Amino acid sequence: MAGSDSLRNAYFPLQTTFPNSSDLMTSHLAKVLKRIDAAHNAGLDRLFELLSIPSISTDPAYAGDCRNAAEWCAGTLGDCGFTAEVIPTTGHPMVVARDRDKRDPGKPHVLFYGHYDVQPPDPLELWKSPPFEPRIGNEKGNGKVIVARGAEDNKGQLMTFLEAARAWHEVDGELPVNVSVMLEGEEECGSPSLPGFLKKHAKKVKADFVLVCDTGQWDRDTPAITTMLRGLAGVEVILRGPNRDLHSGLYGGLAINPIRVLTQICGSIHDGKGRITIPGFYDGVKKPTAKQLRQWNEIGFDASVALSGVGLSTPAGEAKHGPLEQLWSRPTLEFNGISGGYQGAGTKTIIPAEASVKITCRLVPGQDPDAVIKDVKGYFEARIPDDCSIEFKGGHGSAAIGFDTSTPAMAAAAQGLEDEWGKPAVLMGCGASIPIVTDFKTKLGMD
Amino acid sequence: MAGSDSLRNAYFPLQTTFPNSSDLMTSHLAKVLKRIDAAHNAGLDRLFELLSIPSISTDPAYAGDCRNAAEWCAGTLGDCGFTAEVIPTTGHPMVVARDRDKRDPGKPHVLFYGHYDVQPPDPLELWKSPPFEPRIGNEKGNGKVIVARGAEDNKGQLMTFLEAARAWHEVDGELPVNVSVMLEGEEECGSPSLPGFLKKHAKKVKADFVLVCDTGQWDRDTPAITTMLRGLAGVEVILRGPNRDLHSGLYGGLAINPIRVLTQICGSIHDGKGRITIPGFYDGVKKPTAKQLRQWNEIGFDASVALSGVGLSTPAGEAKHGPLEQLWSRPTLEFNGISGGYQGAGTKTIIPAEASVKITCRLVPGQDPDAVIKDVKGYFEARIPDDCSIEFKGGHGSAAIGFDTSTPAMAAAAQGLEDEWGKPAVLMGCGASIPIVTDFKTKLGMD
Repeated sequence: MAGSDSLRNAYFPLQTTFPNSSDLMTSHLAKVLKRIDAAHNAGLDRLFELLSIPSISTDPAYAGDCRNAAEWCAGTLGDCGFTAEVIPTTGHPMVVARDRDKRDPGKPHVLFYGHYDVQPPDPLELWKSPPFEPRIGNEKGNGKVIVARGAEDNKGQLMTFLEAARAWHEVDGELPVNVSVMLEGEEECGSPSLPGFLKKHAKKVKADFVLVCDTGQWDRDTPAITTMLRGLAGVEVILRGPNRDLHSGLYGGLAINPIRVLTQICGSIHDGKGRITIPGFYDGVKKPTAKQLRQWNEIGFDASVALSGVGLSTPAGEAKHGPLEQLWSRPTLEFNGISGGYQGAGTKTIIPAEASVKITCRLVPGQDPDAVIKDVKGYFEARIPDDCSIEFKGGHGSAAIGFDTSTPAMAAAAQGLEDEWGKPAVLMGCGASIPIVTDFKTKLGMD
Repeated sequence: MAGSDSLRNAYFPLQTTFPNSSDLMTSHLAKVLKRIDAAHNAGLDRLFELLSIPSISTDPAYAGDCRNAAEWCAGTLGDCGFTAEVIPTTGHPMVVARDRDKRDPGKPHVLFYGHYDVQPPDPLELWKSPPFEPRIGNEKGNGKVIVARGAEDNKGQLMTFLEAARAWHEVDGELPVNVSVMLEGEEECGSPSLPGFLKKHAKKVKADFVLVCDTGQWDRDTPAITTMLRGLAGVEVILRGPNRDLHSGLYGGLAINPIRVLTQICGSIHDGKGRITIPGFYDGVKKPTAKQLRQWNEIGFDASVALSGVGLSTPAGEAKHGPLEQLWSRPTLEFNGISGGYQGAGTKTIIPAEASVKITCRLVPGQDPDAVIKDVKGYFEARIPDDCSIEFKGGHGSAAIGFDTSTPAMAAAAQGLEDEWGKPAVLMGCGASIPIVTDFKTKLGMD
């Protein structure tokens, strides 16, 4: 899921039985649930097949695997009673499906959204088993889990939905509402082909609302619906100095070192209190209301507990905002990767020809991604010396978004989760971003 | 040579005839020179053989190639009339040879020093031909040149000496002075095994003085003797934050980013005028004398010309010192490589677990390498937040050194160069470092 830790041993809870209720047992739903339980192992095999495909969307070397994953999803949708097609885009293909020829006008129409692509699994040495060879492991505090890249983001979630649809079809011959499906292949690399696709194929995916299973629960036992997502704006900065790597003895003291320039600029972006100093960066950022802040306080989030799980202790964001406020209402600027000069073992006494940094910003409602990228670029451009040149790569973004929590669909979703888990769903914010959610909302008007 | 640009298409001038002088032609020397000319092509073949061995000392993957290069040199020394042996060290082996069983006490004893190791050839895409497949090319302004990694540093120089020794042996049956040879395999990675080797085998290499052909000429037509070398101190700094790469959505604003910390520290090391701000860094640095500064001014060094060759225009060192002063009398701190987080194509929205930087400093006479390394480490240690840990790798150094230019050996060398080139040799400083020269001077008392 977008809201998953990229290196966590991705887990998808192996729950084989559902809550026992006499009301439920007499309904269609009960038969469907029973059917799902009975087909548990076959479903697991199918999930493992999908998890074995290294559909890493950000790296062009895996374009063929992305295509294979798309074809596999379309085939499986066909087996589950859908009419599916793989639609080419300017990047990785989109899988689109519908469950019946004509909509039943008396029932709501829901679009299920998922993505078949995954993040790169590196650094590989931190995986205990190969990331594309799924296995069932034991995780402290979680019990039996499926371990594989993409298990919890997003292949596990999308297969849950497909297996449920398969069971409904087998039991009832049809789904209880009108359902369309859209599976994307570029969620993990910023969805660059998405605007063009939605413009061209809006009719195929327009529904009453969208079901996006790409975030997390509040905790292991508490379901949640995410009602706010941060946006994302990213850019790669490449600084060039000398026209080749120089010997630091012959040129040291005379020639500009691009790593020196890059670290001076990057190192000046955050001030001593964690605030981002780029002029205009915080333009449009809204303060959370007093009510929001009160709700967040009531959740009982302990930053030191959250951080201790990853070996840290101290919130490193803006000192004047609390931890949940930092995560759910404040934008960030992170250096995702930095590179320059000699990368091998040992020493090479060079002044390198270039150095580069990959930057992404998490945005909150009110910020304009294009304006943020412009401000970041401008900050670098204003600080490079005469003897350096600068190149920017990427530079796409998606705005943050918040949803109306009072709609019938939202209420039904919350009730469904409460029925299953026996406790109310938390309506939470999310620090992560799912670019397509913004487009569904702004371009197609779907919550 | 140590004083070579690591990515320059290493050149070694192809000069097949020597100055014609009736005095010379009647001497032994003339016969030797004639012999060398006659064997030119065979000598070139031998040099190409050595250049084909990828003896990259800094990377453990090439340890076998370093051993092969050492064995090849020992075999060739044997062919040239030497008794040679390959002596193991704690790192790559040392090749040591002598030209006769007993010294002739009436003649001086010179140790020839060279190194058979080379720097890594990356980035490979900037080479027009494979770096370990030597070829003869044409270089603008230099004419025919040998193009290969190590051709000008140091395999070309050492083979010049060996071919000369071969010719002397063939013509005269012996060399005109007592000669020992020492070929090192770790010059390009800071000579870590050298102190131990010299301690154990001092007797084998002790001579009246050393001939080190590992620097450059002043220009194509002007010979030079290097009388000052900068020292070198290096360390790699690894900063660690979270115990694994984190999703920047889930943790952004909460978890410390090691790239942010690293760039803040690195970016603060040089001030706006190019001066290094690390406390104690300049301790012991001596100002050049008025006479030295006058000599340097007379050489007519034009920094903008030197920089334009590498695509630059403005000296980037300490603003208050002139360009040759920056190169020959001021220490530097350079970032040779920086790394952290996602290094692949595209975007990966992580907060990385670690970031690292490789640093080397060029030192001038008066600076203590150990003290400099301690100061650099202390600067980082004082600036890391509670949630980061720090590790240092490497941390060896060699002091800078200057030689007495009034000795008979120095005068003879200068005269020899003037005889051959028809103009006086420039006595110059060198911004680069050859660690062993320091050890020869300080541990064995040899100029």
